Amino acid sequence: MPIDPNADIEITAFRWVPEFAQGLVRDLRVRWALEEAGLDYRVRLLGQERPADYLKEQPFDQVPSFNDGIVQIFETGAILQYIGEKSETLLPRDPQGKYRAIQWTYAALNSVEPAVQHRVLIETFYADQDWAQLRKPSADQFARLKLKRVSDRLGDHEWLEGNRFSIGDLMMVTVLRLGNRGGLLDDTPNLADFVKRGEARPAFQRALEDQLATYREHQPEGVAA
Amino acid sequence: MPIDPNADIEITAFRWVPEFAQGLVRDLRVRWALEEAGLDYRVRLLGQERPADYLKEQPFDQVPSFNDGIVQIFETGAILQYIGEKSETLLPRDPQGKYRAIQWTYAALNSVEPAVQHRVLIETFYADQDWAQLRKPSADQFARLKLKRVSDRLGDHEWLEGNRFSIGDLMMVTVLRLGNRGGLLDDTPNLADFVKRGEARPAFQRALEDQLATYREHQPEGVAA
Repeated sequence: MPIDPNADIEITAFRWVPEFAQGLVRDLRVRWALEEAGLDYRVRLLGQERPADYLKEQPFDQVPSFNDGIVQIFETGAILQYIGEKSETLLPRDPQGKYRAIQWTYAALNSVEPAVQHRVLIETFYADQDWAQLRKPSADQFARLKLKRVSDRLGDHEWLEGNRFSIGDLMMVTVLRLGNRGGLLDDTPNLADFVKRGEARPAFQRALEDQLATYREHQPEGVAA
Repeated sequence: MPIDPNADIEITAFRWVPEFAQGLVRDLRVRWALEEAGLDYRVRLLGQERPADYLKEQPFDQVPSFNDGIVQIFETGAILQYIGEKSETLLPRDPQGKYRAIQWTYAALNSVEPAVQHRVLIETFYADQDWAQLRKPSADQFARLKLKRVSDRLGDHEWLEGNRFSIGDLMMVTVLRLGNRGGLLDDTPNLADFVKRGEARPAFQRALEDQLATYREHQPEGVAA
């Protein structure tokens, strides 16, 4: 049971978020990696009003930040790598294996997520704006092109580098999940299956359940669950 | 002189790009890091028509890819880290210093670049599209907010973590340079100075000159330089 109030590792997370964001907030990535690595952690919960000095910890005012008493960092890519250094399950030790995993972590965050997130925000957050309606077809096309590139590379392999799961797969699954609700994966069934394989891992299930349990516990009165 | 046709390290780059992209293509990041580390490299040049199997090397059809006979990878973030492992100039050896540098590399690519690039593309590539004109004010505001976050964190320090340059600074400088031409740094003079400090480094100058020299050499006939 990795959540332990006395753990050395502390991460930040939100106390509650609206339903559309539940299961997608980025602390999920770190919880999942810690579960895979079997490392205990505690959670410091934040509301919409952050503590006055939170920007010193996370200058973009987001979650999670990470602190184990040795390293205090933000950015889920960096945090996953740091956890990976402690767990060969997540990050191979040979240079090619290690840097392929790191490569996919960056690819998920820089070559895929911006296109997927832009498309998702147009469908949701910006849906009522004129520019979003006009932009929607080309944003959709661009996101699908990026996904096709990943799909072609994945082929019929289990994970991005064959049969060995790594932080690169973990990160890519969480990025692809953003697009899953908007039907973005409909053209690439192998990516949809890849996401399902990620979500089926016991470590993912525990991480997701712990994130959602926090939101249930802090559900504001008068807001539908 | 790090460019050496017999070097073990090979990167890919474009033979030529239009003027607006010159000095911004991503092989510049890797050339700069290799110059800082004093590592020789050779360049394999690609045209608009890539070799049939290039997607196996770089599934998003971009440059650069990197191969030193030990590791074959893409994504500039991963490549910079790999080079950093060979050069303490670029990547501190203590865990906090190392992971702060890695954190800023991810921050540049995931928390800053998507907003800056979206704004830049609206000003240039998409300038004649109706959605881009409507989106411009909010895209501008969003990009400036991200830059303000970095600016506040940098304060009057020389580099992002104080007085020690790292791959995090290198990456952030190259991302901020994207916005520099569009006036995005006008509100944050400390970031403009940070970019100037990066560009003043001899290693940056050599890397830029080598990229531009390639474009001059392969300038198509009938296209203004």
